[in-house]
Amino acid sequence: MRVHVVGTGLIGTSLGLALTRHGDEVTLEDAIPTHAALARDLGAGRLPTAGEEPDPELVVVAAPPDVVARCVLGALVRFPEAAVTDVASVKGTVLAAVRAAGGDTTRYCGSHPMAGRERSGAVAGRHDLFDGRAWVLTPTPDTRPEVTARVAEVARATGAAVREVPPDVHDRAVAAVSHVPQLAASLVAARLEDLDEDAVALAGQGLRDVTRIAASDPHLWTQILAGNARAVRAVLTGLADDLTAVVAALAALEAGDDAPGARGTIARTIAAGNAGQARIPGKHGGASTVYETVRVLVPDEPGQLGRLFADVGEIGANIEEFHLDHGLGQDFGVAEVDVVPAAAAALAEGLAGRGWRIHG
Amino acid sequence: MRVHVVGTGLIGTSLGLALTRHGDEVTLEDAIPTHAALARDLGAGRLPTAGEEPDPELVVVAAPPDVVARCVLGALVRFPEAAVTDVASVKGTVLAAVRAAGGDTTRYCGSHPMAGRERSGAVAGRHDLFDGRAWVLTPTPDTRPEVTARVAEVARATGAAVREVPPDVHDRAVAAVSHVPQLAASLVAARLEDLDEDAVALAGQGLRDVTRIAASDPHLWTQILAGNARAVRAVLTGLADDLTAVVAALAALEAGDDAPGARGTIARTIAAGNAGQARIPGKHGGASTVYETVRVLVPDEPGQLGRLFADVGEIGANIEEFHLDHGLGQDFGVAEVDVVPAAAAALAEGLAGRGWRIHG
Repeated sequence: MRVHVVGTGLIGTSLGLALTRHGDEVTLEDAIPTHAALARDLGAGRLPTAGEEPDPELVVVAAPPDVVARCVLGALVRFPEAAVTDVASVKGTVLAAVRAAGGDTTRYCGSHPMAGRERSGAVAGRHDLFDGRAWVLTPTPDTRPEVTARVAEVARATGAAVREVPPDVHDRAVAAVSHVPQLAASLVAARLEDLDEDAVALAGQGLRDVTRIAASDPHLWTQILAGNARAVRAVLTGLADDLTAVVAALAALEAGDDAPGARGTIARTIAAGNAGQARIPGKHGGASTVYETVRVLVPDEPGQLGRLFADVGEIGANIEEFHLDHGLGQDFGVAEVDVVPAAAAALAEGLAGRGWRIHG
Repeated sequence: MRVHVVGTGLIGTSLGLALTRHGDEVTLEDAIPTHAALARDLGAGRLPTAGEEPDPELVVVAAPPDVVARCVLGALVRFPEAAVTDVASVKGTVLAAVRAAGGDTTRYCGSHPMAGRERSGAVAGRHDLFDGRAWVLTPTPDTRPEVTARVAEVARATGAAVREVPPDVHDRAVAAVSHVPQLAASLVAARLEDLDEDAVALAGQGLRDVTRIAASDPHLWTQILAGNARAVRAVLTGLADDLTAVVAALAALEAGDDAPGARGTIARTIAAGNAGQARIPGKHGGASTVYETVRVLVPDEPGQLGRLFADVGEIGANIEEFHLDHGLGQDFGVAEVDVVPAAAAALAEGLAGRGWRIHG
């Protein structure tokens, strides 16, 4: 397929690299010509020659969130035969802007590859960035089926798994599963900014997990959250209501030991979290599966994890999830090996028999 | 040392198992005699014989949070020569109750082992539960130094690393690094309870990390949060203020594109999260270290992780952190191998040379 990529940052360059390897014909452009030339040098595609106008079957707009709609509209006018997609994390605002400006929505199908890195720019591009990730397509009733099919074909060519949902469903979904979690992680992490060193030192794995994504880029996230303001605010308002109830319950408990209803409010909050957490799909996007965790003490020396996994392989257990945690001031870590419940006892026994210390 | 353990749930039984292995003389009791007998059968210590009154050097109260203060007071009266500690997650309320009742605070030193499991009860007990974990001691100016030393000796005998902080500092610290993160995880996870299946299916690793601890026990956490109401509410109020500002900023952005200041509010929120997250200690409780992540595609077959770690060992890289993530609808996972920055390039190259697919 002939694909024209507009915007050669992390996503555009990675897409160019993937499609070039797949055998597609990729042309590149960027508002900053040096960026496009860099992506070209990295092997992401070629630049149009002087005076050449590309003739793409598909245009992929991979520009920063704030300028995506303008670029999509430009592409629809400039390439009247092409299908056009974009890869922004929010779909409703782009679609509304395209419609408001009278763009040809029969040739537009928004999309969102659920892939990224903590680094940005063409040099961070990877040909396999989309491999094994979801790529959401958000066609509207206006979108011609062959346009959607072309976007799906390109997404699959990168190794991604394609899902189709309406734009508003996508935006409400990512508000709950991505944008609000990002804000919550940032708000929790922000509490640590002025904490004493002694207090921060008590941090455990729970805090590390909750705040990992708080390291994300403020500029990018400001554009994403502003672009999905309505859906994010709807989810946040529900969260804020629950938070207000918990704060009131804690205030009642502070004021007097009896505090009727206060403990019930807190217990219901934690129980609602249990129920929500249990819905998160496990491995392979299937229904949530409950695994059993076998914890193993791993000395902090090169080769120990290799020995551990060789032993797990010998025992014949298939690892579903794996996490390595480090203790405070100790020269070893705790490996959490998640396996299907039926395999847990044999794994723990087999590892203990091979000299591993199984941890509580 | 002669140690008497009051309460033979997960923590009390694990402590008995650890100290018995260490060669200490452990006696056990529980409000429910069957529970104490079970812990005895598991090897956690012995039960006092009929008519025998134990003569411990240290009493460890490992009862549920709500009854800890009463048990501490009882132990101070019943064993007038013994040092007494407890292992509750909140220290200020226990101390206040002991003081209010006129308990002998010269022989009391609160403590808090930072260890636990997702299961509870004596049968979940492990002799190595405290191995490599922090065990916080919270002596007051009243506490006699030899009492604190006795608690520290027992904590170290279990393999834990001892830290000393005042009770109020401990409670404020765990409010920020443990109790508020728990509530935030629950509040985010609760948003998923009524979400469409299609929306939940878009969940990625970020959401999984933020909500992992939302699976915690509502009964235990209600006691913990109620016991630390003041400190938790102080941290939550700061979080709620920031949240209100973000919701207002989003409302302004919904109302009109211009919304002066709204984007600044959001960017500052994410940036404050960056700063707080960077303070979390890394491996071995040291200052936060920035590692470089090498991502490797791992086919979903037994033995593949063993091969990966054997190769990493051969290349000579020391793994600092390791996480395995699974793609949606694909038969492989993405292993994130964190190493010191100086080792990353050689590791990626070495793995690629051994046939591994390095992932963006």
